[in-house]
Amino acid sequence: MTRSAKKRTRKAGLPPGTLLYTGEAPAHEVKLGVVRYDEAHFDESEAKTAEDCLPVAEKGAVTWVDVNGVHDVEVIRKLGEAFGLHPLVAEDIVNTDQRPKLEDYGDYVYIVLKMLYRDESRWIRAEQVSIVLGRGFVLSFHEGRSAASFAAIRERLRNDRGRLRKAGADFLLHALLDAVVDHYFVVMEDAGEQIESLEEHLLGSPTQATLRSLHLYKRKLIFLRRSVWPLREVLASLERGDSPLIAGAARTYLRDVYDHTIQVIETIEAYRDILGGMLDIYLTGVNNRMNEIMKVLTIIATIFMPLTFVVGIYGMNFRRMPELDWTWGYPAVMALLILISFGMLIFFRRKKWI
Amino acid sequence: MTRSAKKRTRKAGLPPGTLLYTGEAPAHEVKLGVVRYDEAHFDESEAKTAEDCLPVAEKGAVTWVDVNGVHDVEVIRKLGEAFGLHPLVAEDIVNTDQRPKLEDYGDYVYIVLKMLYRDESRWIRAEQVSIVLGRGFVLSFHEGRSAASFAAIRERLRNDRGRLRKAGADFLLHALLDAVVDHYFVVMEDAGEQIESLEEHLLGSPTQATLRSLHLYKRKLIFLRRSVWPLREVLASLERGDSPLIAGAARTYLRDVYDHTIQVIETIEAYRDILGGMLDIYLTGVNNRMNEIMKVLTIIATIFMPLTFVVGIYGMNFRRMPELDWTWGYPAVMALLILISFGMLIFFRRKKWI
Amino acid sequence: MTRSAKKRTRKAGLPPGTLLYTGEAPAHEVKLGVVRYDEAHFDESEAKTAEDCLPVAEKGAVTWVDVNGVHDVEVIRKLGEAFGLHPLVAEDIVNTDQRPKLEDYGDYVYIVLKMLYRDESRWIRAEQVSIVLGRGFVLSFHEGRSAASFAAIRERLRNDRGRLRKAGADFLLHALLDAVVDHYFVVMEDAGEQIESLEEHLLGSPTQATLRSLHLYKRKLIFLRRSVWPLREVLASLERGDSPLIAGAARTYLRDVYDHTIQVIETIEAYRDILGGMLDIYLTGVNNRMNEIMKVLTIIATIFMPLTFVVGIYGMNFRRMPELDWTWGYPAVMALLILISFGMLIFFRRKKWI
Amino acid sequence: MTRSAKKRTRKAGLPPGTLLYTGEAPAHEVKLGVVRYDEAHFDESEAKTAEDCLPVAEKGAVTWVDVNGVHDVEVIRKLGEAFGLHPLVAEDIVNTDQRPKLEDYGDYVYIVLKMLYRDESRWIRAEQVSIVLGRGFVLSFHEGRSAASFAAIRERLRNDRGRLRKAGADFLLHALLDAVVDHYFVVMEDAGEQIESLEEHLLGSPTQATLRSLHLYKRKLIFLRRSVWPLREVLASLERGDSPLIAGAARTYLRDVYDHTIQVIETIEAYRDILGGMLDIYLTGVNNRMNEIMKVLTIIATIFMPLTFVVGIYGMNFRRMPELDWTWGYPAVMALLILISFGMLIFFRRKKWI
Amino acid sequence: MTRSAKKRTRKAGLPPGTLLYTGEAPAHEVKLGVVRYDEAHFDESEAKTAEDCLPVAEKGAVTWVDVNGVHDVEVIRKLGEAFGLHPLVAEDIVNTDQRPKLEDYGDYVYIVLKMLYRDESRWIRAEQVSIVLGRGFVLSFHEGRSAASFAAIRERLRNDRGRLRKAGADFLLHALLDAVVDHYFVVMEDAGEQIESLEEHLLGSPTQATLRSLHLYKRKLIFLRRSVWPLREVLASLERGDSPLIAGAARTYLRDVYDHTIQVIETIEAYRDILGGMLDIYLTGVNNRMNEIMKVLTIIATIFMPLTFVVGIYGMNFRRMPELDWTWGYPAVMALLILISFGMLIFFRRKKWI
Repeated sequence: MTRSAKKRTRKAGLPPGTLLYTGEAPAHEVKLGVVRYDEAHFDESEAKTAEDCLPVAEKGAVTWVDVNGVHDVEVIRKLGEAFGLHPLVAEDIVNTDQRPKLEDYGDYVYIVLKMLYRDESRWIRAEQVSIVLGRGFVLSFHEGRSAASFAAIRERLRNDRGRLRKAGADFLLHALLDAVVDHYFVVMEDAGEQIESLEEHLLGSPTQATLRSLHLYKRKLIFLRRSVWPLREVLASLERGDSPLIAGAARTYLRDVYDHTIQVIETIEAYRDILGGMLDIYLTGVNNRMNEIMKVLTIIATIFMPLTFVVGIYGMNFRRMPELDWTWGYPAVMALLILISFGMLIFFRRKKWI
Repeated sequence: MTRSAKKRTRKAGLPPGTLLYTGEAPAHEVKLGVVRYDEAHFDESEAKTAEDCLPVAEKGAVTWVDVNGVHDVEVIRKLGEAFGLHPLVAEDIVNTDQRPKLEDYGDYVYIVLKMLYRDESRWIRAEQVSIVLGRGFVLSFHEGRSAASFAAIRERLRNDRGRLRKAGADFLLHALLDAVVDHYFVVMEDAGEQIESLEEHLLGSPTQATLRSLHLYKRKLIFLRRSVWPLREVLASLERGDSPLIAGAARTYLRDVYDHTIQVIETIEAYRDILGGMLDIYLTGVNNRMNEIMKVLTIIATIFMPLTFVVGIYGMNFRRMPELDWTWGYPAVMALLILISFGMLIFFRRKKWI
Repeated sequence: MTRSAKKRTRKAGLPPGTLLYTGEAPAHEVKLGVVRYDEAHFDESEAKTAEDCLPVAEKGAVTWVDVNGVHDVEVIRKLGEAFGLHPLVAEDIVNTDQRPKLEDYGDYVYIVLKMLYRDESRWIRAEQVSIVLGRGFVLSFHEGRSAASFAAIRERLRNDRGRLRKAGADFLLHALLDAVVDHYFVVMEDAGEQIESLEEHLLGSPTQATLRSLHLYKRKLIFLRRSVWPLREVLASLERGDSPLIAGAARTYLRDVYDHTIQVIETIEAYRDILGGMLDIYLTGVNNRMNEIMKVLTIIATIFMPLTFVVGIYGMNFRRMPELDWTWGYPAVMALLILISFGMLIFFRRKKWI
Repeated sequence: MTRSAKKRTRKAGLPPGTLLYTGEAPAHEVKLGVVRYDEAHFDESEAKTAEDCLPVAEKGAVTWVDVNGVHDVEVIRKLGEAFGLHPLVAEDIVNTDQRPKLEDYGDYVYIVLKMLYRDESRWIRAEQVSIVLGRGFVLSFHEGRSAASFAAIRERLRNDRGRLRKAGADFLLHALLDAVVDHYFVVMEDAGEQIESLEEHLLGSPTQATLRSLHLYKRKLIFLRRSVWPLREVLASLERGDSPLIAGAARTYLRDVYDHTIQVIETIEAYRDILGGMLDIYLTGVNNRMNEIMKVLTIIATIFMPLTFVVGIYGMNFRRMPELDWTWGYPAVMALLILISFGMLIFFRRKKWI
Repeated sequence: MTRSAKKRTRKAGLPPGTLLYTGEAPAHEVKLGVVRYDEAHFDESEAKTAEDCLPVAEKGAVTWVDVNGVHDVEVIRKLGEAFGLHPLVAEDIVNTDQRPKLEDYGDYVYIVLKMLYRDESRWIRAEQVSIVLGRGFVLSFHEGRSAASFAAIRERLRNDRGRLRKAGADFLLHALLDAVVDHYFVVMEDAGEQIESLEEHLLGSPTQATLRSLHLYKRKLIFLRRSVWPLREVLASLERGDSPLIAGAARTYLRDVYDHTIQVIETIEAYRDILGGMLDIYLTGVNNRMNEIMKVLTIIATIFMPLTFVVGIYGMNFRRMPELDWTWGYPAVMALLILISFGMLIFFRRKKWI
């Protein structure tokens, strides 16, 4: 969160529409993958300039420009101008701290959503995916982590599998959204496994580290919730068909993605509830162990304090202590000590402490 | 939950409409029970192919196909095609991790809900029931656990009891929904009994295992809530009569089912509240027992420490300790010890510790 | 709650409209009190059959049938048929586990609400009251506990007090609802007194039993909330005048009952908040007492452990311990002991423990 | 709360419209202050009968009847009849347990709200203020505590300050509402000061009494919330101009009062949050002090128990204990004891306990 | 909060529209910076009187009056009159305890929002910024802290950077709002850093002071939430274009500011969640440390109490204690003591305490 605010700080004071990349340092060149297809043709190429990406004015044909890498501000700006996008759209594409949203500019629709992925240490991270749906074209922007998922769609287009080739740009939009949301389940499965293993730790032998993990998971879920929750509204708006760019047939499919998103959100909420319950269990476990410890201490003290007192009595140096001279004095005291011990044990048994 | 996410993972990357069964391993063959009836006739058979199930074009007659087992993806696909269902409907039927929902496709309405049942260890589980209501036909899909409930409806149809035979397909839909929701009460009764017995344990002699049960019940209720809550909206939509497939007369009955669902939801919420209160009671009980233990320890220590100190004094080996030579020295010290003990006991009595 | 679910279980599997009484075992015969009145006339009788209850077709006259006892399913069924009620209405009347609701059947309005009363052990219970308002008639159904409240209304009609005689059936409906809601205040007053006495106990000398009472009260309030909360919506709907059976003049009065219901709901919510706060106070009190106990233990141990150690030193049997031979050895040690004690006391005083 | 329910109990069973004063025992006579004014004239008098209060049929003139004391049921009834008020309005005026509400009777609007004030012991109490706005007249009813605030408005009218004299009855209504809401800030300021002083106590040296104060403040805020919260809706309705009695110009001013009410509500909510946080701080403080106490006990016990054991060894009376005969035996043991003590102190230093 | 209520108190009883400055004591003179610009011209000056500020009736030209300092009530009053503002607007400008709001007066729109800034001790404070948007003019009022942010906009206008000079007054409004909201990110970043350093403290070596900081941060976030939350509604209303003063082109930009505000609100909510979780972690940490302490105490007591008892036995002075005379008595007892110690250590090892 702090990270996000920090990036924005650099922008404070600049006029709106100023392009400033706010993601992490880029690791590779920007790649512009252009795919053009209709029912009969399929053509893919790597574009050099923004102009190479422009859709061909052919009826029914769909042009998909997949921009892998949004850190090169200049490329995004030119592409935005070539496709006639509002300056704020280009600004939002490079500013990777947007929350999921949908903006309808009439001629085109701009959608922001988050691709979730696990980094090397299995920590869940989010990458911003921007999609622009226009008449006959789709632009998708991401930072590289979504490349594999989107490549699968290109593969499907190339092999003419499914109804995707026959349908228009709105179906391609659905395919992209579906790919991102389907990937949420992969991430959620991983999170679920980690939470379950955490639960086993907690119910078994919890340490301070387990507790810290619990805290981190709670934060992770807060983060996941912020990444997924607003998508619900985005998809509801698409499904309602507020935009003429999306035909009725595609809407049925978008409703399906909407249902999946709700499922993911409900899973996140359920995980939150479970984590909350786990902390209660942990706290009660700590209290119970404290009780155990106190019982041991109390039993020991309650048995040995009277005993030590009794032997202390006969350690006194009074000249006149008749018991000391008795023949059976020592065995008698020993018997008394055993009696006291048993009395205490019976007392604890009654209290159900042992 | 994790289970649910895991299944979805297998689907990630496949095009929408790909049929993939996500439930548990099937235990039996798929059975297609076909019932055709109108006011005068009643006819039941077991279909072999999807075509055998198609409704006869007779006015007023209702065809009900009850599909017991949704793991045979091929059967569902063919049936879907025969009845002209959208590919996504067939996909949702075999994907048994849907949340309850209603989808209106104009010519037919697709409803998903959850049948609750107890498995061998009395643990509450849910099975997905899909119902398609079309003009003159009803398709019901389940994994086998709902067979008994639905057989009772078939029995009722056969014996011409009630108004069911005279009425249309919408009344059959009501009968199916009513059967599922009525069964919720059976499950809730069982859950209620278990919670009450848990409560007795907690107020009596709670163990760490009781606490773990409490935790499991909380999770179970989170699960129940997710299974039942969305049904509310489904039934509200049916009752409002958004679809022309449902006549006004049937709506009054659907409102009745809606009322029952609200009752179940309220019971779940009340159980959640009660479980929450039970944890508080348990925690306070643990604290109280700790207090008890500490009291015993403190009383023992406070009485015997001064006593031991006093006898320690007269155990010292100083050459000049006049008391040691006194005739009444020993009895005097013993009297002092008794005095100290009584003083302490009075102190504790005042503090209301004993 | 469990009780409620258990009753429903018996119904699972039966066709809708099957009459099955779900209340407790009946203690008396069903009584059909029929009152017929208009501005000029007043006539009351006890009906034997359902037909005796039918309204006379006289303009302006109101017929009120008060059914005391709903366990005789046959009587309710016949009455329902005589007045042309929907089978589901008769079913809901005898099924006494309904939540408060309003159902508008066009020709008549069916209202369910709960009469609250205290049983012998001052425990708050609820009895279901069903009211049917039709054109020129009102039917009221209850299990007997509401008899006294409704008799007062009959008394008022007989003595021609207030505007009740001149007004129509809608005013009679208001009188019945008002009687039920007014009785809520009596029950709330009693609950308030019990909660206050519980609070005094908790702040004074709480026991484990006090805590259990607190738990029971929380459950009672959950139960009260479920009984009263939905009535809010029922009355709001009546006041909005969704039904033509209720004239504008009566609506003003129904708004008054609505206000009272809101007041009762707010009181319940406030009681819940107060009970929640009481548990916190109790827990903190337990913690404070623990602190007290630990302080006593620590003070005693911290004073006497060093003292016992010192006297232990001079109890050692070394041949060469010069102090033992000193003339002032014993008094010097005693002085040292007193010094140590005072030092400790000053230490505790500084820590504000004593 | 209990008090409120108790008063209502007396009413249970009476027909609606029965006037019964439910406030505290009255301390003075009812005073009817009548003010008549328009832009040019100003006239004030004390009325004896309800008829004296009736507005003069002069265009533009406003009649304001300020009724100080609502315990004289007869006076209210007559006044209500003279001004043609609905019987329920008169009932609500004398029943001082209403929640804030607005009722639009077409010809006049009836408003209930709560004047907050501090009694002798600085405890916050509420007094019911009823205002009736009609065409050319305003009636205000209170129990006496609001007299000072309303007198200031009369003073303003007399001295022709502000735009109040030129404007109509709706502006007078605004002035009355504004006076009541402005007084909320005075009460909130006082509550804020008390909460702050409570906070200092809690962070300094909290006692059981501080905790009880905390509990009382929480209840007080629950009470304040109930008194102010519904006013929000009342003012929103006035501002929306649902009634033709309120002109557009007055609405702008009512929006101002609405804003103030929101501010008061937000302050109450913030106080609730702060009190909730204070309890957490207190509980943690108690836990921390317990930790302190336990540390002292453990340090003392851990140092002196081994020491006492060692000196105990050399207090044994075995005939053959070579150490006892050594010349340097005693100093050696003393050195050992010092060594043990230092070892323990280093151990505790490492654990950061000292 | 208390501060806010205190200021209002001074106002209680005054007629509405009375100007009373409720901010802190002013530190400087009021400055009226007037900027007049259109696409071609740019002119800035410091006005002496309200009349100097009036807009020139030139088409397309925008007049921006930036009032630095709102404590001089007289200046605000005159300016308000010169621009024909409603008296309540002037009152709200000088009353710096308003919550963010938008008021549409038809000819002009009045907006209140909060500029957040850090004072010398990094504590977050808010300054009220009022903006009036009229036809061809914008008035902005602040207390001085926003001067730097607004100067940057003036700078941008002067240097003709961006589209600001060509656009109308609505774009200037956007620039001002954007400057304020952008500054929120700076403040949030700082808060985030402080919360993170607090978290490190808490997980490392928490003290009572850390806890107090936690409490203060919670209060700070309550305060931030109140300052920012209502702005959401203000911006939503502007973006919906409820006012004709705002053209469609500007609305797209206002939606951008709206998105930023949502981001800030979500960050505040996330911080609240994190702080709540931190308290839980702290409490559990305290409990764990208590457990540690108790373990040490119990281990020490459980080992040394039996040992001390045993040596006490052989310190008794009985004449007949055969063991004392044995040659190997002393070594035997020492062996026994070592045995007991090891037994205890094994016991603790099994309990996993060491």
